[in-house]
Amino acid sequence: MSKGVGIVKSQFLTFGSSAEPFVTADGGRIPGVTLAYETYGKLNEDHSNAILLFHALSGSQHAAGNNRDVPGLDGRWSEETHTGWWDGFIGNGRALDTSKYFIVCANYLGGCYGSTGPASINPATEIPYGSTFPRVNVHDIVRSQLPLLEQLGIEKLHAAIGASMGGMMALDLAVHFPERVANVITIGSGIRAHGLQQMHNLEQIIAITRDPDFQGGDYYGTPGPVKGLALARMISHKTYLWADVIEERARVDIVKPRLDLPWYQISSALESYMLYQGQKFVKRFDANSYLRIIDAWQQFDLFDDAKALGKSPLFAGCENQRYLVFTIDSDCCFYPDYQAEICSELKRAHIPHMRLTVHSEKGHDSFLLEPKLYTPHLAYALSN
Amino acid sequence: MSKGVGIVKSQFLTFGSSAEPFVTADGGRIPGVTLAYETYGKLNEDHSNAILLFHALSGSQHAAGNNRDVPGLDGRWSEETHTGWWDGFIGNGRALDTSKYFIVCANYLGGCYGSTGPASINPATEIPYGSTFPRVNVHDIVRSQLPLLEQLGIEKLHAAIGASMGGMMALDLAVHFPERVANVITIGSGIRAHGLQQMHNLEQIIAITRDPDFQGGDYYGTPGPVKGLALARMISHKTYLWADVIEERARVDIVKPRLDLPWYQISSALESYMLYQGQKFVKRFDANSYLRIIDAWQQFDLFDDAKALGKSPLFAGCENQRYLVFTIDSDCCFYPDYQAEICSELKRAHIPHMRLTVHSEKGHDSFLLEPKLYTPHLAYALSN
Repeated sequence: MSKGVGIVKSQFLTFGSSAEPFVTADGGRIPGVTLAYETYGKLNEDHSNAILLFHALSGSQHAAGNNRDVPGLDGRWSEETHTGWWDGFIGNGRALDTSKYFIVCANYLGGCYGSTGPASINPATEIPYGSTFPRVNVHDIVRSQLPLLEQLGIEKLHAAIGASMGGMMALDLAVHFPERVANVITIGSGIRAHGLQQMHNLEQIIAITRDPDFQGGDYYGTPGPVKGLALARMISHKTYLWADVIEERARVDIVKPRLDLPWYQISSALESYMLYQGQKFVKRFDANSYLRIIDAWQQFDLFDDAKALGKSPLFAGCENQRYLVFTIDSDCCFYPDYQAEICSELKRAHIPHMRLTVHSEKGHDSFLLEPKLYTPHLAYALSN
Repeated sequence: MSKGVGIVKSQFLTFGSSAEPFVTADGGRIPGVTLAYETYGKLNEDHSNAILLFHALSGSQHAAGNNRDVPGLDGRWSEETHTGWWDGFIGNGRALDTSKYFIVCANYLGGCYGSTGPASINPATEIPYGSTFPRVNVHDIVRSQLPLLEQLGIEKLHAAIGASMGGMMALDLAVHFPERVANVITIGSGIRAHGLQQMHNLEQIIAITRDPDFQGGDYYGTPGPVKGLALARMISHKTYLWADVIEERARVDIVKPRLDLPWYQISSALESYMLYQGQKFVKRFDANSYLRIIDAWQQFDLFDDAKALGKSPLFAGCENQRYLVFTIDSDCCFYPDYQAEICSELKRAHIPHMRLTVHSEKGHDSFLLEPKLYTPHLAYALSN
């Protein structure tokens, strides 16, 4: 019998100062960085059992158990977020077994669940950063978590794991710091932003930034670009689930969102359902954080990074790592061929790897919904 | 050697009056309807060689040859529209052979290329209809073309042909008036709006109607919701071409659109290309017409219509028709299984039909770009 981790609390680590700021790839300076994080399980004596888990675009540090509140989030912590997003994967006897491993998950730099982001107060001005919060890229987000590992006494990770954008983080960490991670596990991810993703991301950026209530990003104290953010979420939501699943859910969970579209009359359950997905999301996410994160996705290209590092092939230097790459056959956000691309690069560099395709009717979000599809191979890869 | 139709002019037919208005399915009343149309080839003596061709969402009556101007379009007729959208398919010795057939194509009711639509002057108010122009559905658009057939002396069509939304029109005509059409030919189409299409359409409706410059639809005399319409076009454009084709085009045709996005910095050729697609489109299309047409798509469900007509199965009564259904394997707007659905319904009703899958790397727009893939079977089906 597996057992969840129970009640948990987020913790916070602050580092840096105006004298020693965190400098982003883009040259932005963040004087102090706070990371909100959670841990599950115990670090063993030789500090060799740590797993760093990266959340996906709209996830948080709260991966497992029950967390009723994270302070200072201005209403964004709601019932929807109380249960950890990978609760079915983490616990005693689960895929990430807390009786064996020490699991760490931190909210992205630029995020909105307790780590420093655009909604945080800028100590220099005493108002939220808003438009002045710098662009961050995937590697900035990854680098920002190194001080946390240091603080926790983790020199080398047993594994880095991530699905979706989180998988991009795991790959970025693995390629930039091959000596710091032994096992790399990704689900529905990629080594670069692909064309269709860039199109979806650009649409969302436009939807948010052209909303008049965006006010250039300095909307704090006002409702903000809730309509633009809701549209963005609708645009992305349809890539997370196989369309048939969305239609089925719309038929079953009849929702009646506030119908405030000019001119158009909603006539189908599917339309109501999609509008509701957008409206629900804006309550729990900050538009500026959303923009920073999809911008990071948009810029992501490990090939470019490898070139800059003088690495060829991409995974050169990763010979001591082992990779497990999960592909979801119905994934229409990170298509199966994006995973094949990861593996063909691993092959070029002669890195031990295994690719598994899980057959799911759910689509991309299978990684959140179907722990049983992943558990045996996750547990096996971690135990080796 | 095949030969195009040369210089052509659009013609106009006006019918109805305030006493005898065109009444839409929704109960809207349009006192007088003008249809802009073109014809190619000659009607034979027994009037048995007529083909009605339906254009797609953003097409026009101008299917073949060269038309330098359609009067009264407020700048929407541009170089981009001078050559007919199916010019490679229509002419002496082409798939729709003008030495054999009389081809008719009319702009949709609600459109913006000369047929009565939201930008037309409402005779009652002497200003454009704008927000007061009624919703139209696919069957309204089809019905509005019957007076044109009557005027031209066509009782029964040799064929009704359409790709994409045009195929929906051809199917609607064939199911509602089986005695009026002998051959039905569709390319990349469907018998109902599918979930993914409805999601894309809804996103576009939101993008347009929430643009503050939409002004509820009464924006004539102002630039109108050009940003919302451009975003809508970007959202749809990605479904018309296979993503690899878009990426390839973006690499080859470097474009520099006006960069007026708040906050975000465009960094890739793909992003520029997509923005350019949006900006280009708004010059040639009216946002209100666009809304009417995607609303018609959104509502389309021949199953519902058949139920209302007491028809079961859907194609009951179509026994004297023959169907040719083209599927494009890389189509991500009208997916191959939507075409399979048409054929399984035809099979249920024992209607003679043939389905062909063309293998294309282009995606949905193959129907505009690759006449050779379709010509032999089109010509063969029409000659029988």
